[in-house]
Amino acid sequence: MTGWVKIVGLGPGADSLIAPEATSVIAQATDVVGYIPYVRRIAPRDGLTLHESDNRVELDRAAHALTMALDGKRVAVVSSGDPGVFAMASAVFEAVDDGPSQWRDVDIQVIPGITACLAASAAAGAPLGHDFCTINLSDNLKPAALIEKRIRLAAEGDFAMAFYNPRSKARPEGFERALNVLRDTCEPDRLVIFARAVSTPEQSLKIVRLADVIESMADMRTVVLVGSSMTRVIDRDKGPIVYTPRSVPE
Amino acid sequence: MTGWVKIVGLGPGADSLIAPEATSVIAQATDVVGYIPYVRRIAPRDGLTLHESDNRVELDRAAHALTMALDGKRVAVVSSGDPGVFAMASAVFEAVDDGPSQWRDVDIQVIPGITACLAASAAAGAPLGHDFCTINLSDNLKPAALIEKRIRLAAEGDFAMAFYNPRSKARPEGFERALNVLRDTCEPDRLVIFARAVSTPEQSLKIVRLADVIESMADMRTVVLVGSSMTRVIDRDKGPIVYTPRSVPE
Repeated sequence: MTGWVKIVGLGPGADSLIAPEATSVIAQATDVVGYIPYVRRIAPRDGLTLHESDNRVELDRAAHALTMALDGKRVAVVSSGDPGVFAMASAVFEAVDDGPSQWRDVDIQVIPGITACLAASAAAGAPLGHDFCTINLSDNLKPAALIEKRIRLAAEGDFAMAFYNPRSKARPEGFERALNVLRDTCEPDRLVIFARAVSTPEQSLKIVRLADVIESMADMRTVVLVGSSMTRVIDRDKGPIVYTPRSVPE
Repeated sequence: MTGWVKIVGLGPGADSLIAPEATSVIAQATDVVGYIPYVRRIAPRDGLTLHESDNRVELDRAAHALTMALDGKRVAVVSSGDPGVFAMASAVFEAVDDGPSQWRDVDIQVIPGITACLAASAAAGAPLGHDFCTINLSDNLKPAALIEKRIRLAAEGDFAMAFYNPRSKARPEGFERALNVLRDTCEPDRLVIFARAVSTPEQSLKIVRLADVIESMADMRTVVLVGSSMTRVIDRDKGPIVYTPRSVPE
């Protein structure tokens, strides 16, 4: 039996947003590895072993998946959203790059998924309808100064922005620093969207002006979208729509 | 009968990458509108009218969809990829914003999809595994100087980048200008990926150093990914993997 590792995205939350290719990989797998809440989204069945692991052990999980694949297992590594966006794909490839040479012989494939910022944008309208930047606000693995620099440059370029992992309980000060950069660089009316648990029963969506943002509007289940200077709201009886037009005038 | 407009993404090309929610919308629709090649991906059936239209008539198409919905039709507006990324969602909302007031009463929903850069990244490994910018290189609707400014700032921030619509037959000079900005701001070994028609039978993937890029490697079916300075290649007998590590050292 030839083993493999396939790294799949489970999308933002709803089962109806999981790509059929990801579903098919899970149906063929003998083993699923991933962070606890993502593995719990997989229905148990005979012949499938579920391996839950904690946050921040991504390299151990990757090594486990690669080792099982060399033993002939068909291993699905599950992430939420898209596995290539602040998720498990890079961790698996870091493990391959630094690991024993036989890991390079493992069949590895990445199956794309719907990443959280796209689902958040769809729920609000189309705030990412023009050029945008995607930034992970967690400073676990990169300097806080680099995060601030990137936000500043994104604002200078008038990109819309999507912030992942905006605010952890352990280190809430990162989001405050990001907000301070936005307050320095963007007008007070700039539109900000707090999209939490999009496409799940707990979905909530807050649309506010930058001047009205309160730090506690974000947590780790929230994606924060920041409009460009062109982003606007359509007020309607059916609820507001936020979108960024396709055109920028000369 | 209550009409609606649902704006759905058909993903990068493969049917196995269409979200079940998009498939379900199409199954419920009475009418499908979209650019010719996207509408041709929809299987004809009794009770469904397919309305193909040409490129660059997005606002007319949006108006048509909204008008039909007011007449009680259930209209699926189809885009490739994700409808919120350089696609039909913004066009529909521009039409609503500028159109007759009754268009604001139409039920409108956006169903997210897998946008081309995620599929391209997955096919190559995980080059977008860290912060990245998504930039439309078409200067149909925005000044060429703004495109160059954004690429320059993205390079200064050491973002990875994804370029959509890199090179049209009518205006190939835009891609040459983008390349010149990259050559000014990035080292010659910077990794560039030309991902064409990803997930279709015509898929091709070229991984080259910036110094070896030739303008003709891109066309309108290509997404171009540019790594950050941290992006690296794993050389393997099974073919190269390009990825961006999750960490940036202090």
